[in-house]
Amino acid sequence: MRHLLDICDFSEVELNELIATAEDIIVNPAKYSEKCKGKKLATLFFESSTRTRLSFEAAMYELGGHVLGFSSASSSSTTKGESVGDTIRVTGYYADIIAMRHPYAGAPLAAIQKTKVPIINAGDGEHCHPTQTLADLLTIHREKGTLENLTIGLCGDLKYGRTVHSLIAAMARYKGTKFIFISPNELKIPDYIKKTTLKTTNTPWEETDSIEDAIPKLDILYMTRVQGERFLDKAEYERLKNSYIISTDKLQTAKSDLAILHPLPRVNEISVKVDDDPRACYFKQVENGKYIRMALILKLLNEKNYESPISQNKKLINVYKCTNHNCITTITQEIDQIFEVLDEEQGIYCCEYCKKCEVKI
Amino acid sequence: MRHLLDICDFSEVELNELIATAEDIIVNPAKYSEKCKGKKLATLFFESSTRTRLSFEAAMYELGGHVLGFSSASSSSTTKGESVGDTIRVTGYYADIIAMRHPYAGAPLAAIQKTKVPIINAGDGEHCHPTQTLADLLTIHREKGTLENLTIGLCGDLKYGRTVHSLIAAMARYKGTKFIFISPNELKIPDYIKKTTLKTTNTPWEETDSIEDAIPKLDILYMTRVQGERFLDKAEYERLKNSYIISTDKLQTAKSDLAILHPLPRVNEISVKVDDDPRACYFKQVENGKYIRMALILKLLNEKNYESPISQNKKLINVYKCTNHNCITTITQEIDQIFEVLDEEQGIYCCEYCKKCEVKI
Amino acid sequence: MRHLLDICDFSEVELNELIATAEDIIVNPAKYSEKCKGKKLATLFFESSTRTRLSFEAAMYELGGHVLGFSSASSSSTTKGESVGDTIRVTGYYADIIAMRHPYAGAPLAAIQKTKVPIINAGDGEHCHPTQTLADLLTIHREKGTLENLTIGLCGDLKYGRTVHSLIAAMARYKGTKFIFISPNELKIPDYIKKTTLKTTNTPWEETDSIEDAIPKLDILYMTRVQGERFLDKAEYERLKNSYIISTDKLQTAKSDLAILHPLPRVNEISVKVDDDPRACYFKQVENGKYIRMALILKLLNEKNYESPISQNKKLINVYKCTNHNCITTITQEIDQIFEVLDEEQGIYCCEYCKKCEVKI
Repeated sequence: MRHLLDICDFSEVELNELIATAEDIIVNPAKYSEKCKGKKLATLFFESSTRTRLSFEAAMYELGGHVLGFSSASSSSTTKGESVGDTIRVTGYYADIIAMRHPYAGAPLAAIQKTKVPIINAGDGEHCHPTQTLADLLTIHREKGTLENLTIGLCGDLKYGRTVHSLIAAMARYKGTKFIFISPNELKIPDYIKKTTLKTTNTPWEETDSIEDAIPKLDILYMTRVQGERFLDKAEYERLKNSYIISTDKLQTAKSDLAILHPLPRVNEISVKVDDDPRACYFKQVENGKYIRMALILKLLNEKNYESPISQNKKLINVYKCTNHNCITTITQEIDQIFEVLDEEQGIYCCEYCKKCEVKI
Repeated sequence: MRHLLDICDFSEVELNELIATAEDIIVNPAKYSEKCKGKKLATLFFESSTRTRLSFEAAMYELGGHVLGFSSASSSSTTKGESVGDTIRVTGYYADIIAMRHPYAGAPLAAIQKTKVPIINAGDGEHCHPTQTLADLLTIHREKGTLENLTIGLCGDLKYGRTVHSLIAAMARYKGTKFIFISPNELKIPDYIKKTTLKTTNTPWEETDSIEDAIPKLDILYMTRVQGERFLDKAEYERLKNSYIISTDKLQTAKSDLAILHPLPRVNEISVKVDDDPRACYFKQVENGKYIRMALILKLLNEKNYESPISQNKKLINVYKCTNHNCITTITQEIDQIFEVLDEEQGIYCCEYCKKCEVKI
Repeated sequence: MRHLLDICDFSEVELNELIATAEDIIVNPAKYSEKCKGKKLATLFFESSTRTRLSFEAAMYELGGHVLGFSSASSSSTTKGESVGDTIRVTGYYADIIAMRHPYAGAPLAAIQKTKVPIINAGDGEHCHPTQTLADLLTIHREKGTLENLTIGLCGDLKYGRTVHSLIAAMARYKGTKFIFISPNELKIPDYIKKTTLKTTNTPWEETDSIEDAIPKLDILYMTRVQGERFLDKAEYERLKNSYIISTDKLQTAKSDLAILHPLPRVNEISVKVDDDPRACYFKQVENGKYIRMALILKLLNEKNYESPISQNKKLINVYKCTNHNCITTITQEIDQIFEVLDEEQGIYCCEYCKKCEVKI
């Protein structure tokens, strides 16, 4: 069986195939309108989201299928103390495929240990949000005709922004990618991303706190929201939230074929006046999100017999306990604690669920 | 493209056509059961409602379509600070038509500035609720065989009741309409309705605080709930809420073909014993609500190429700022403030979103 | 018209027919996939539940029908003071059949007085939850090939557990049933069950506080959750909640063909390690729940012309007022207070809604 937990679960070839399917759906929607007849998608949103949930629902309807689920944890049995593993296993008797969003990192990894149906990670706490990245990739491909040789500026909250981290992981695999990281000092890209993804792929990058300096060099500008709910210190949030705003003025030095992306929702980081600029692609991204999710649902339902290659990484089972308060293992009883080697030489392992908690042996 | 924001968006001819379509649906449901095959309705309820939301859902299913959406603001991205305009624009990529309810007046007017699909106002704060009025009109037409020459009593909360205001606006356009307004002094019909709608249409009206006096004269009795959520002073609410209750006793002097309507939900303003009286039409109204919404969905989907006539009214753009705390403009950044002429001679303009805030130039 | 309010609404013959239909659906799903084409199920959940609601939704989709409704009272008009009777009557214009869950006992009995469509009780406060019992019966039948001559252990919260009470009522009617009640003293089975159901059916039973003693004798072990939300005293809950836990160790003395059931959700009363034991049937129960609900929906939709036999029991209408604070009559105005004879000789009557409040005449 096949799941999508992290964008890196798919190879570059697979990503290209997904994009090709989505582009075929856009051209020939009728060909796909009954592909999921009689199938059911469960949207289990333990944390609310308009865009992602409605996008999955629209995708399933356009494939001719049904949708069931819940839109907040308070409408689920979680309030009665049920583990996410049990909720997912149960839902597997009601649906053929599950898209889940959860406030805790690694919840989908806990879920696939129990499920009999494919799981799609629709966002897991601070960890990642791979279907947003799929929408980003389809948008870049449709706008640029390629995923290669692009200079990509990422702006805003690069520290906490999970869509940023996933997009880096995905684009670093493509030939000729160059990143420019634009953020205030407090929200800089984490060091581990530089040390792992960027280093192993030899991807060049620059860092700056000035949108103005960066903008003329960019093929893609990926804006993100400074998310209030990720800050412990509300005063710091108030000080920073308006730092990085895109206006029509700032775009005057940009390339004429720049593509501006944003995972949405936005608050005020892009002026609504920019919406009418042909370089604004964030609403196209929304539409692309629906099409790539259609392609994803089809792929996962078609790969029921897929056998995951056994990971060659060294693992420690129930030796260390994760200390990240956002990790699913901290709220679930009777779950295996799994640490995977991160750096063999230095003896560093990290929690396989949240990828945050590290131990040195 | 065509929207329904206010009952006055439709001409008398259009209202009659809608009623005719609904009556045809009632007689020939099978003819319509696949009319919306493959189409999607989004029900975006930023404020909860059972009746209206389920009525739209049932309507879309009986047309063979799909439904997606949310049933409260807490399940939407609004909690992340997204503007209603963005939410609506995004939803336009997932659905072919949108029915929205919002706690702020004028939210649908903000929405149509961004949308690529038809918008139906399913209730916007203190402003209006036109699909309830459509249900009222269909019910009156089915019970009386006409919309002309009727004496209509409106009882209860005539000050805040948006369904009352919309029904007055609609029925004042029909020949021979006469209104009797029945309410305690504190909840009387607002003066501006007398000065505008009733004056320009030359519709006769009476005002009384006695149900007993009014009831023998009526063809239609439109009861409304004294709504707790509209009162700032809870003590005043407690004192007034039981003032105007319909019982089997009070109906003894009524005409034998009186039709009693109520937008529901009721609390205790109509005794349940009245439910068995053949003059009780409020549950028929519920069923009619579904049929007229089917007719409305069909009409709006068929008028994708409709071009709104350009309003000849004078407008002031971004000159004055609306001060009505229930107006959508007070919570939305980067929205045009639009004031429209209300009284040319006296130089009075009012906010086009909420129709409440007035300025004199 | 036919409803399902209590498992005892169906005769033994009818239960056997439902089970037979469900087993036919399992073998021939395609035969049933369009049986409810164009029909609508309303799921009105005034109290939230993942499993039961999603099970009904999946059931209706697998019959080819539509689903609408709400998943919590806050998304309904109940917050505006509407009675459950009105909400149900209104929903009858939108749906062909209604499954409702309500926090107050007897709410479905209040509902059927107003409805024009069949009502399924999907759980009413402390009262009962008959569709869970249907899932239990189908599971027992599929595992054992019969519903006769079985020794059934019921473990955990036997005082408040409504699924336990319903299962006793159902299985007591089958030949050769024997019960073993396993619970701490504080959560023992109520006396009235011994005095009524068990006495009138002559069903043998034992009582113990030791799982270990009971387990070797059992064909069926029915575990239940000690439910925090049913306790007024939270300290008592904390002390008792871990008393009765099933582990792989405790199963060593059990029969090799024991079937372990649990209505779910579980917290920790069954170790997840037991999930891999072939005797664990609680996830099969989940799947069976979907199939038996399909059979139930079909049965009720097919019996629109059924006339309920007039009860020969003596009733007192509006003589006594129910004092059970969980009874629907305590929150609904203008509802008939109905007390039915429980024990003719002793002159005991009980509230027909909640079956809890008794009076002696």
